[in-house]
Amino acid sequence: MPDGKPTTLRTRLYRQLDPEARRFGLSPTNWALAIFIVFASAVAIVATEPTIHDRNARLFFLAEFVFGGVFVVEYLARLWVAPERPGPEGGWRKRLRFMFSFSGLIDLLTIIATLTPGAPAGPLLRAFRLLRVLRLAKLGRMSSAWRHIGEAITSRRAELFLSLFAGIGLMVFSATLLYLAEGDAQPDKFGSIPRALWWAVATLTTIGYGDIYPVTPIGKLLASVTAVTSIGLIALPTGILAAAFSDAMARHRERVAAGEED
Amino acid sequence: MPDGKPTTLRTRLYRQLDPEARRFGLSPTNWALAIFIVFASAVAIVATEPTIHDRNARLFFLAEFVFGGVFVVEYLARLWVAPERPGPEGGWRKRLRFMFSFSGLIDLLTIIATLTPGAPAGPLLRAFRLLRVLRLAKLGRMSSAWRHIGEAITSRRAELFLSLFAGIGLMVFSATLLYLAEGDAQPDKFGSIPRALWWAVATLTTIGYGDIYPVTPIGKLLASVTAVTSIGLIALPTGILAAAFSDAMARHRERVAAGEED
Amino acid sequence: MPDGKPTTLRTRLYRQLDPEARRFGLSPTNWALAIFIVFASAVAIVATEPTIHDRNARLFFLAEFVFGGVFVVEYLARLWVAPERPGPEGGWRKRLRFMFSFSGLIDLLTIIATLTPGAPAGPLLRAFRLLRVLRLAKLGRMSSAWRHIGEAITSRRAELFLSLFAGIGLMVFSATLLYLAEGDAQPDKFGSIPRALWWAVATLTTIGYGDIYPVTPIGKLLASVTAVTSIGLIALPTGILAAAFSDAMARHRERVAAGEED
Amino acid sequence: MPDGKPTTLRTRLYRQLDPEARRFGLSPTNWALAIFIVFASAVAIVATEPTIHDRNARLFFLAEFVFGGVFVVEYLARLWVAPERPGPEGGWRKRLRFMFSFSGLIDLLTIIATLTPGAPAGPLLRAFRLLRVLRLAKLGRMSSAWRHIGEAITSRRAELFLSLFAGIGLMVFSATLLYLAEGDAQPDKFGSIPRALWWAVATLTTIGYGDIYPVTPIGKLLASVTAVTSIGLIALPTGILAAAFSDAMARHRERVAAGEED
Repeated sequence: MPDGKPTTLRTRLYRQLDPEARRFGLSPTNWALAIFIVFASAVAIVATEPTIHDRNARLFFLAEFVFGGVFVVEYLARLWVAPERPGPEGGWRKRLRFMFSFSGLIDLLTIIATLTPGAPAGPLLRAFRLLRVLRLAKLGRMSSAWRHIGEAITSRRAELFLSLFAGIGLMVFSATLLYLAEGDAQPDKFGSIPRALWWAVATLTTIGYGDIYPVTPIGKLLASVTAVTSIGLIALPTGILAAAFSDAMARHRERVAAGEED
Repeated sequence: MPDGKPTTLRTRLYRQLDPEARRFGLSPTNWALAIFIVFASAVAIVATEPTIHDRNARLFFLAEFVFGGVFVVEYLARLWVAPERPGPEGGWRKRLRFMFSFSGLIDLLTIIATLTPGAPAGPLLRAFRLLRVLRLAKLGRMSSAWRHIGEAITSRRAELFLSLFAGIGLMVFSATLLYLAEGDAQPDKFGSIPRALWWAVATLTTIGYGDIYPVTPIGKLLASVTAVTSIGLIALPTGILAAAFSDAMARHRERVAAGEED
Repeated sequence: MPDGKPTTLRTRLYRQLDPEARRFGLSPTNWALAIFIVFASAVAIVATEPTIHDRNARLFFLAEFVFGGVFVVEYLARLWVAPERPGPEGGWRKRLRFMFSFSGLIDLLTIIATLTPGAPAGPLLRAFRLLRVLRLAKLGRMSSAWRHIGEAITSRRAELFLSLFAGIGLMVFSATLLYLAEGDAQPDKFGSIPRALWWAVATLTTIGYGDIYPVTPIGKLLASVTAVTSIGLIALPTGILAAAFSDAMARHRERVAAGEED
Repeated sequence: MPDGKPTTLRTRLYRQLDPEARRFGLSPTNWALAIFIVFASAVAIVATEPTIHDRNARLFFLAEFVFGGVFVVEYLARLWVAPERPGPEGGWRKRLRFMFSFSGLIDLLTIIATLTPGAPAGPLLRAFRLLRVLRLAKLGRMSSAWRHIGEAITSRRAELFLSLFAGIGLMVFSATLLYLAEGDAQPDKFGSIPRALWWAVATLTTIGYGDIYPVTPIGKLLASVTAVTSIGLIALPTGILAAAFSDAMARHRERVAAGEED
């Protein structure tokens, strides 16, 4: 904004609030907001632990009102400065565009979930808590780097889809084999293909909880063969994604160096 | 097919059914068939779960007849349009070639497994269910990308074979060591090398179910050393395969760009 | 040091003690010290095992005095030869710089932890043992290669930070989902998001201890989906770090070949 | 060997037995021997399983004599043809060189372990069985590709050593932390650093047997942090080794193409 316009309060606030108004890094206001969002999310997470919540119920209740207040002020400020965004439309059009943008809707949803006084009891309680944890998503606007992950996934979507499909096919195939081999010995664990699929997921991702594993010699043999031959296939998407992400970041650095992008 | 022949119904159906008749993507008919195959496979998987199957036995019984009907119609249609395939042979030769092709045999096997009324009881029941799950293999014809996985494996077969052999050798070696170290303390788990091999598979693939692990200090020490030194060796095939697959896809893209391939 | 100065005892000792005085490898004295440090650390580790310590308490008590003696002699020797270091400052300035350098402080702390006669009982005992194990950190000065790991991390800090943040976000998100799905069935294990986070860490790192895992069908389904889609994201930092480290070492080899660095 | 010498029986047998006498692949005799060695090793592995061995004790006893006979004939044949090897020395010198080569000693050891009639009882029994499994090592001469693994490790030994050292340091460090945090809650599992090291190995290699894991909140927090930050470091050697191995194989292919190597 190297023009001669007098810098009004709204312009200065816009430069503080909109990450796209700066070429590099975050403004002090956005840094403070990011830290505040992480803190508020951590409080929402800790608040679900009954042993901690019940002893400090009043504190957690009040904290949500403080968080809600800050988020309301932030939302109104962003709404106020929206007309400063580049573009030919009028001020209220820009404000409407902000309200219906992804970030704007997340902001609104966060405020509603935060300010519902005394979250409802019963099954809805947990859903409200989920929304309170989702305030972490407000951090999304702070970095444009998500674009690079998206770019990485898009550029290799053929490989990723193929290896994902091959991985799922392999899971179904090995689950079916183990269902045939172990179904009689452990009917509660391998008595159907969906049950055996839980084994296949835990095995082919190498998690191996140990709640379900083959016990017959033939089941162990089949499990060994599928484990060894399939780990490679499950790991394929990882390798592909890492390479694609690395490429996307390298391209980004080149474009920054060439001055085409910030 | 840029010739002047009048497009008969068979020609149009051929273009809908044979994925190789289109340069890019799938025809609407094949998209619908692919979704139908995934759905039918999912039903076959869910049908093996007794708690779900027994309450809806009649529904699952009827569903298989519907699936069978669709697969029969698909098979007959593919047989009918086979003469439209490129090549100098006569129509019936092309039909025979389709019938004895890999895809054609899978199609036939699927129909037999689907339409066997009231699957046989006893041990054969599970084998029939396996065949019903294998209808997922009908998706194979929808993509030519399997060739790239095959190409990737072939181009590095020396590395893959060597690292697989080294991995198996390491498994046998560490299983023998643990058999020596833990055989007396846990005769039911490490009392023979085949039993210790089950430990070696679960450990070197880092699955670690937890049904079998060393308990003596010397066994734990040997297990630690082999675990640390061997994880790299087991992971080698993964790295090799990921690189080879990436190369094969890059070569494919180049050939597409050069117009040599679709 | 290709000058004509007569090589005094201090100069010769300096060349033995300071790894930076040699272009390649370690001096015999530093090799001996490195082996001694590994041995002393191993003794400190073994000494925490009560079944071994109690039978040899006297031996372990004396061993620490021997270790302490060697470390005191080493410290005084390094202090004495510090003026031989390159640089224009006076001898005592260089000695002070050594005393307040990272390596010098580690040396001093090691001596204090080693020579505290009869480590204090109670809760402080373990802290002293931690410091005794930390004598392993004395090895740090033996290699300049730490710089390469630091360089690798710094050069890709944007990717690493982003993928770490995405990984943590995914952990929080899947922990919240499992808290919703499994909270009623297993309140002691999934009854709050912090508890579910312990599951998320064990699952997304593929460790899978097996102390906590979903048991309801919906919980298993959600766990399967997050496990499969997220392993790639957790593995991203590994791939990035490996590539960056490889690059840093290659650059180092080039600079060595060009004679710009040792 | 394109010279005009008459091909004697010994020359022909040499070309069959020595893998280095052929530019590509294995001779039919060596293929047969390789399959026989794999079979004999599998029999030695299965023979350690008491439930199988005791029912077929006589068969296993006789099998070893058959294996021993074949290995003796192979050894004598290799000894007889040794003078055909390229080199200026006399025939008996070449035979002596074969006898004291690595392959020759493995051959001799295999014969001794195989032909010891009625393996000794007691603790030595298992050691003899270990030697019988080691007949798998006889396959080593069949491929020159081991050189590539060796080359790969050698070319990156600095990186590998550094990352191995960092990994071990991290294990010791996290084991010490967990010993401090969990020592009081689970004295039998985390009551000393060596015990906590067993946890560290199972965790940092992501095996996670589940026999040992933290139960206190602070222990779980420390375990989470070390698990997430350290998996990358443990995985570093894997990435380095995979890249180095890939490079070594590519260089090999180039040299083969340039005709410098077979």
